[in-house]
Amino acid sequence: MPSYQAPVDEVLFLFNDVFNWSSYAELPGFADAPMDVVEAILTEAAKLAEDQFQPVNMIGDREGCVRNADGSVTTPKGFKAAYDAFKAGEWLSLPASPTYGGQGLPATLAAMVNEFIQSANMALSMYPGLTQSAVAAINVHANDDLKAIYLPKMISAEWSGTMNLTEPHCGTDLGLLKTKAVRKADGSFAITGQKIFISAGEHDLTSNIIHLVLARIEGAPSGTKGISLFIVPKFIPDAAGNPGLRNGVTLGSIEHKMGIHGNATCVMNYDGATGWLIGEENRGLNAMFVMMNEARLGVALQGLSQSVVAYQNAAIYARERLQGRSLSGVKAPDKVADPIIVHPDIRRLLMTMRAYNEAGRAFIVWAYLKSDVVHRSSDKACVQAADDLLGLMTPVLKGVLTDIGFQSAVDAQQVFGGHGYVGEWGMEQFVRDARIAMIYEGANGIQALDLVGRKLPKDGGRAIMAFFKEVGTFLKTHAETKELASLLPPLNEGLQCLQKATGWFMQNAMAKPDNAGSGSYDYMNLLGHVTMGYMWALMVQAAEARFAEGRCEADWVAAKRTTAAFYMQKIMPQTKLYLARIEAGSETLMAMDADAF
Amino acid sequence: MPSYQAPVDEVLFLFNDVFNWSSYAELPGFADAPMDVVEAILTEAAKLAEDQFQPVNMIGDREGCVRNADGSVTTPKGFKAAYDAFKAGEWLSLPASPTYGGQGLPATLAAMVNEFIQSANMALSMYPGLTQSAVAAINVHANDDLKAIYLPKMISAEWSGTMNLTEPHCGTDLGLLKTKAVRKADGSFAITGQKIFISAGEHDLTSNIIHLVLARIEGAPSGTKGISLFIVPKFIPDAAGNPGLRNGVTLGSIEHKMGIHGNATCVMNYDGATGWLIGEENRGLNAMFVMMNEARLGVALQGLSQSVVAYQNAAIYARERLQGRSLSGVKAPDKVADPIIVHPDIRRLLMTMRAYNEAGRAFIVWAYLKSDVVHRSSDKACVQAADDLLGLMTPVLKGVLTDIGFQSAVDAQQVFGGHGYVGEWGMEQFVRDARIAMIYEGANGIQALDLVGRKLPKDGGRAIMAFFKEVGTFLKTHAETKELASLLPPLNEGLQCLQKATGWFMQNAMAKPDNAGSGSYDYMNLLGHVTMGYMWALMVQAAEARFAEGRCEADWVAAKRTTAAFYMQKIMPQTKLYLARIEAGSETLMAMDADAF
Repeated sequence: MPSYQAPVDEVLFLFNDVFNWSSYAELPGFADAPMDVVEAILTEAAKLAEDQFQPVNMIGDREGCVRNADGSVTTPKGFKAAYDAFKAGEWLSLPASPTYGGQGLPATLAAMVNEFIQSANMALSMYPGLTQSAVAAINVHANDDLKAIYLPKMISAEWSGTMNLTEPHCGTDLGLLKTKAVRKADGSFAITGQKIFISAGEHDLTSNIIHLVLARIEGAPSGTKGISLFIVPKFIPDAAGNPGLRNGVTLGSIEHKMGIHGNATCVMNYDGATGWLIGEENRGLNAMFVMMNEARLGVALQGLSQSVVAYQNAAIYARERLQGRSLSGVKAPDKVADPIIVHPDIRRLLMTMRAYNEAGRAFIVWAYLKSDVVHRSSDKACVQAADDLLGLMTPVLKGVLTDIGFQSAVDAQQVFGGHGYVGEWGMEQFVRDARIAMIYEGANGIQALDLVGRKLPKDGGRAIMAFFKEVGTFLKTHAETKELASLLPPLNEGLQCLQKATGWFMQNAMAKPDNAGSGSYDYMNLLGHVTMGYMWALMVQAAEARFAEGRCEADWVAAKRTTAAFYMQKIMPQTKLYLARIEAGSETLMAMDADAF
Repeated sequence: MPSYQAPVDEVLFLFNDVFNWSSYAELPGFADAPMDVVEAILTEAAKLAEDQFQPVNMIGDREGCVRNADGSVTTPKGFKAAYDAFKAGEWLSLPASPTYGGQGLPATLAAMVNEFIQSANMALSMYPGLTQSAVAAINVHANDDLKAIYLPKMISAEWSGTMNLTEPHCGTDLGLLKTKAVRKADGSFAITGQKIFISAGEHDLTSNIIHLVLARIEGAPSGTKGISLFIVPKFIPDAAGNPGLRNGVTLGSIEHKMGIHGNATCVMNYDGATGWLIGEENRGLNAMFVMMNEARLGVALQGLSQSVVAYQNAAIYARERLQGRSLSGVKAPDKVADPIIVHPDIRRLLMTMRAYNEAGRAFIVWAYLKSDVVHRSSDKACVQAADDLLGLMTPVLKGVLTDIGFQSAVDAQQVFGGHGYVGEWGMEQFVRDARIAMIYEGANGIQALDLVGRKLPKDGGRAIMAFFKEVGTFLKTHAETKELASLLPPLNEGLQCLQKATGWFMQNAMAKPDNAGSGSYDYMNLLGHVTMGYMWALMVQAAEARFAEGRCEADWVAAKRTTAAFYMQKIMPQTKLYLARIEAGSETLMAMDADAF
């Protein structure tokens, strides 16, 4: 069975040394979480993940969720107990608004807690994960009455939330959705239609389930401009705020999926279910986007989380599995064979995962800190700058880190050879679980299109220009920094590729939109890889400072140096490939008739 | 449910136009299979694949194989009938020796039949696939008595075969194996031990199962030099050659695997089972290598086969699924949305699969023709030249085409969005099935090591030099060929990268073997990608000739041109990345202590 150890120290390094946590102290919530408090919280979160979530991960995969004859769902053995431990620890309330019972701590801190529990058990973590997204949407768009009814119970994890967007004929293109809402005399709506792929749509972990549902009000315009967002509780809260009448929303079936079997992915049938409008009429997509942007960062975290746990297990196996001898001479003469970690090709897999994991986590922390600034700072210039970069990078984080999460799971599985393909080692579960993150919350191709079509040209390219300036300034400032000498030229080459690619889009994409589409995926990767290279430079700089101050072991800083050098030498060259593909344009993609495929 | 259509015309194009089938007519077997016979055979094979194998593929995944209380195995519903159709069609005998009831037709032709049935149903095709490999090993190494007993029944598909190498503590490193063989008075041996991951180890498709088993004879040296190969039938043939006494080999359990559920992957227990030595004592690995080389090409075909069927289904879905509008303006104004094939990023996925599939198939045909030359030609120089290239390319085909097979399955699944993740569309099965091909018959990292450690330096690099010469001559010969003008410069650049990388190995790998290991995977990819580029050049040349002679439609040749151009512009630039990684050497890979991972 796989194991998991939450990387508490790595997170502390990022918070304290790389991103200077104390410099955020004036933002609401940060003052309540100085580094010693952060460490205590992360240590507790690690226990929750390691002791409660991880032990039931494989059981969840094997048992899956069962639909009972009465339409109720039984989650896998042990899920309820683990969820109750999560609820008892008030983990969901950590970043939530104190007005509704939240602790108001930084979202960045909550994100790292989420990394831990998702590494330990992705399927189980999705139940509270969806609640967090729903809380975000309700918090921004619902009126105070609805907030007062729903938020305290959701923030306490007593009730859970869902997102209902997809219908059988539409996922990406929500303008096609058919679910209808009919206004009732009391101001509520009767919702009717079918939704599919609803994660956590029905289960036995909470006493109520709060569905956020996109539907079209009778008479509303067709397309995306006629969609509204509704809150539709499974049980309608009574006057005391407790679950009351059963609402007209029922489970159709549970999907049979490749992975995340422990999470009930449901077909939900709405049959005149009572719902209340959230936000403005016909502006539902707008309201849902709040939820989706939160969710996209959450999915990026899922990618990271699966990569991390897969790596940990592959590293352990590579140290223990004895097979063959080192090419450079026997390394373990007392054993029947050397551990396979002596082989360069095994290390190629491990180093690749490792380099991505550390850079990916830094990238996520960097982004979440911007999210905290956006939501908590009163300095408008700071908010705008943070919002620009957060908006630009959200699709990149989602697309790139979930691709990497899957690739790492596959690579880690490969380290196990045939044992990786059979269920008992648990490695193939990581592959199947990680796969969904590339698809939901907007397939990664859609993220790439969002990036080049919307985020990149927004405000005249202000966000990407700010990024160029930030990295460019770093390169100039550290031109003479000895410790970074071997890292900065490759970073600079990556940045050059990115700038050339950006220029190419400016020149070629306006006149011919297919050029934007044809290079979008490569551009997403290019931006993500340059950013992760920048993260490595920041990490080495901070690690060297830590070492100089005697706050770490020589081995620790050496591992940082080596992994950074690996990233620059073996991974950063990919940026040239991305640029070459972008510059090759759309011609060969678009030439063939659809029927010729 | 997915569909499948066997690409008969594409195979005919390769045989006839690209590789000049008639030029092989003097080799035994080829004269019996002129193009019209080939076409008839492939057309029948297509029917078998489409009508018998494909319809039970998804059932096979859902039902899996069941171990009964008596240790017997029931294969999924419909597998027996499909296998019987295969047996009745005498498909297994197609390339086998006429001495033992085979038809003696070209292995190249049999390979294409295998592509079809594997695309249709990989798990089912593995049963006869393993028999084919076992037949090859028996044919080369067993004495005439054993051949006479086993080959006719195996070639008729009445009995099946298996390969028993792996034990719980050893897969790659067979020198560690513990299964023992004790010589008996009658010259047979008593085999005792446990083998794992035995594909088709026990099942209900045939009346006997012939296990080829690696074991160590009492008193034999330790390590790889003390391993012998034995034939161990499930039922010992009686005097009439029919299944007689039940032998001491039994099913321990069936592994729970990520995919290929329809194939029983077994733990086999040998408890004094009677076996007969095949080949020389202590030379069992050598004998097994014959089987493994056959099997590696077969696994390369599996990679191709999954890529092809995944592509076909993704292309159909992309033409039918309506979602969003084209960036360059509405394409289907009469529909609620455009089919997603209008989007460049969907085409990026489809074109990548397509470009790899056609080049991969050409690469395989090229290799199998060399195999036919090796086994059938009496011209020693021709045999040596073919054997050199076949030996060099076997690990490349296995490693690169199975990686591509998996990647294509993942990409095809992505085209389906959320529908790709649920079972009913069948796309996630292709991903799970394709995954094993990267692992078994030597994990792909082992293929890469075999390439740079053994095949590349063999005979002073004679094979790779011959390949350089072949491609170089082609480039020179066609320097003025107008139709190839845009394809040859990228091919030449790829070749330059390959030559540089080869030179780098010569200079750096001898002194420091870890340099070979660290660049091995990239070198395997580099060689594979240059070869596939060369295949594209050959295909375009042949397609243009066909068009000039009026033997094809303009659309068909245009698709070839476009796909070739796509390969050169979007895929061939990967060769520079592979070279850059190789030249970065092993330092960052090997620097860290094992404990630091």
